[in-house]
Amino acid sequence: MTLAEAVQIDLNDMGRRAKAASVAIARAQTDHKNALLLGMADALEAHTPAILAANRIDLDEGRANGLGEALLDRLDLLNRLGGIIADVRHVATLPDPVGKAFDERTLENGLRVSRRRIPLGVLGVIYEARPNVTVEVASLALKTGNAVILRGGKETLRTNLALITAVHEALSAHDIPTDAVQLIGSTDRVYVGQMLKLDKYIDVIIPRGGASLHQLCKENSTIPVITGGVGICHFFVDVSAKPAESLNIIYNAKTSRPSVCNTLDTVLVHRDIASDFLPKIVDYLRPAGVTFKADERAMHILGSQPDIEAAGDDDFDTEWMGLILGLKVVESMDEAIDHIRAHSLDHSDGILTENVAHAEKFLNEVMSSAVFWNASTRFNDGGALGLGAEVAVSTQKLHARGPMGLEELTTYKWVIIGEGQVRG
Amino acid sequence: MTLAEAVQIDLNDMGRRAKAASVAIARAQTDHKNALLLGMADALEAHTPAILAANRIDLDEGRANGLGEALLDRLDLLNRLGGIIADVRHVATLPDPVGKAFDERTLENGLRVSRRRIPLGVLGVIYEARPNVTVEVASLALKTGNAVILRGGKETLRTNLALITAVHEALSAHDIPTDAVQLIGSTDRVYVGQMLKLDKYIDVIIPRGGASLHQLCKENSTIPVITGGVGICHFFVDVSAKPAESLNIIYNAKTSRPSVCNTLDTVLVHRDIASDFLPKIVDYLRPAGVTFKADERAMHILGSQPDIEAAGDDDFDTEWMGLILGLKVVESMDEAIDHIRAHSLDHSDGILTENVAHAEKFLNEVMSSAVFWNASTRFNDGGALGLGAEVAVSTQKLHARGPMGLEELTTYKWVIIGEGQVRG
Repeated sequence: MTLAEAVQIDLNDMGRRAKAASVAIARAQTDHKNALLLGMADALEAHTPAILAANRIDLDEGRANGLGEALLDRLDLLNRLGGIIADVRHVATLPDPVGKAFDERTLENGLRVSRRRIPLGVLGVIYEARPNVTVEVASLALKTGNAVILRGGKETLRTNLALITAVHEALSAHDIPTDAVQLIGSTDRVYVGQMLKLDKYIDVIIPRGGASLHQLCKENSTIPVITGGVGICHFFVDVSAKPAESLNIIYNAKTSRPSVCNTLDTVLVHRDIASDFLPKIVDYLRPAGVTFKADERAMHILGSQPDIEAAGDDDFDTEWMGLILGLKVVESMDEAIDHIRAHSLDHSDGILTENVAHAEKFLNEVMSSAVFWNASTRFNDGGALGLGAEVAVSTQKLHARGPMGLEELTTYKWVIIGEGQVRG
Repeated sequence: MTLAEAVQIDLNDMGRRAKAASVAIARAQTDHKNALLLGMADALEAHTPAILAANRIDLDEGRANGLGEALLDRLDLLNRLGGIIADVRHVATLPDPVGKAFDERTLENGLRVSRRRIPLGVLGVIYEARPNVTVEVASLALKTGNAVILRGGKETLRTNLALITAVHEALSAHDIPTDAVQLIGSTDRVYVGQMLKLDKYIDVIIPRGGASLHQLCKENSTIPVITGGVGICHFFVDVSAKPAESLNIIYNAKTSRPSVCNTLDTVLVHRDIASDFLPKIVDYLRPAGVTFKADERAMHILGSQPDIEAAGDDDFDTEWMGLILGLKVVESMDEAIDHIRAHSLDHSDGILTENVAHAEKFLNEVMSSAVFWNASTRFNDGGALGLGAEVAVSTQKLHARGPMGLEELTTYKWVIIGEGQVRG
């Protein structure tokens, strides 16, 4: 596909074709889908020169347009394509959730009832300048018998088109319609609006990006949206917390990858240990370049310093995405829980304590999608929690919460088998 | 609450109060919630004279306004309130899904990981002239630790206010904030629009009504919506179907309750048995007052008769909600499956056959929320399928499909317990 061809776009037609293709991929047996994935990995390998050439042009254009280094780094596939291809082969080894029966029962009237896992149908995935998502989502969608319509960021359109060419080659070679994986070949925003209204064809919208993308989808979509991927993450440090262990967890949660959604944003410290523990946090994290936003009582303990400033009104409602940490003194665990309820985005929140009753109360009463006791929030991740793969991290209530693996890309139907039963 | 008080409405404030109350009901233990439900049943019994008096006024006004008999019948609680109260007591006996742990594992790094069921939070339920829904939804919401905002039909506002007064009395007596169950005390449609945008406070919208209500919610809500409750239901009669058993199932599926969503709309008959079987269907169902809409080939077999007419363009896309049955001859099971895929609303579709391979293919390839083999579609119901209760029947892909019981009013959080683990 060339850029010139790519701009002939009829979203309604793409949706219709995706729906038709979804029937073929939904029927494919596990072996067939796994062979397709291995073929996809091979095709991506064979196309590597073309993919990297397209990626080079995207990078050059991005640099000319003044993209920041962080964004250029995300875009660059040179040292990353091998890993992406290995991940596709890994998805082929994972168990297939489709067809799995559960809740099997025989009712008193003899009806045999079960639920059986089936694909969702057609996924709509909207993402930004990460070409790795193109391949990752395609492989997870196909593994779970779903068709997918992709809309990637404008900075990476050429790379995405080159990747999709390889994916299509594998689909054709394995007798699955290429319409099962379609990329919107234009980054005109008008197509995002059209995509969000295609409820006739698309079964779920999965945005992967910042808060504003999720908001846009929530407000404009007539298709169910899975929101998430944005977090304001907290630890409450209880009186009985082990100091060294707690500092190590806080350090890891804040500094191991500061730009991701499961990174720590705020530490709430019980007042009885605040004057001892707050200075320890500062001493422990300062060498990593962390700076601090402290509430009034924490400020009083720490004193004004070049890397410590008074927290402003919105600071406890900010996802820092960098080496900044909010510090606040609380009167009690109840105050900590209330603060989390008011400021968390339901992503990852934890307690550091040796008090079992306090831990249980915290784990019960905090309703975030993942709650932690004496472990780093950075573990809120499909890979780290043993799902084998991750599509997105959901922070909403419906369908799936927390890291979404393969099973979360399926739904179910009820299967009712009788011998002539009728309802009285 | 009187009608005069009821019209002081601030949806945003109602949402805020529901969210606060949801914390209290989410924390309530199973015994506490069951005692509350039994108290609610007692209060409804104590308030029966007031409830029936309010219901009498609604009925008189409805009759004066020319409401049809079917609607008046739905409204009338005189012979129904006892059953509604008994259902509340039954909900108290059902298992509580909240707190149930699943997928418990210990990872290689020693982290103990599980998922734990929690309430959804605040439900928003929009329904029409069925006052029984008020009590039913309140009891199911409270049992599962959820708060709820109710918006019922205008024909039944007085009845609903009287019911809610009893519910509030029980809530107060059991130390749960009355804000846990709130009724929008006006049926001005402007409040429906406001309710659908309250994503800050409401976690899910559950419409209970016809297709247009579901469409309105889907198009206007910024809150996830569970759509369903509307069905165009099919049977495919295969060559090997047992005639007498099949006629009995078709009769039951069409006539046992013609106005509900799991009632049969269309029968697809294999051409090899059509000339024999179609006249049998007509003979068997005609005495119950069923009339028929036949496609060209079925017409050719049956001939024009007073109660058989040629199906028009939209007839196979119509949910009949009455004693009409579509009849169509198909060349093959594949044509039947294609017809169902094009015309079903994913509610309830079945096959009548003695051929196991055909049945398996049909059950695999039809993606409706419930698929049937030699059993009546009328079994697609939470009570009939052993869920103990039913909130709604979902026909969408996300979260829940088919009849939704108590568990479908919950979500989950991940609980991660460590001993100082950090991520490498």
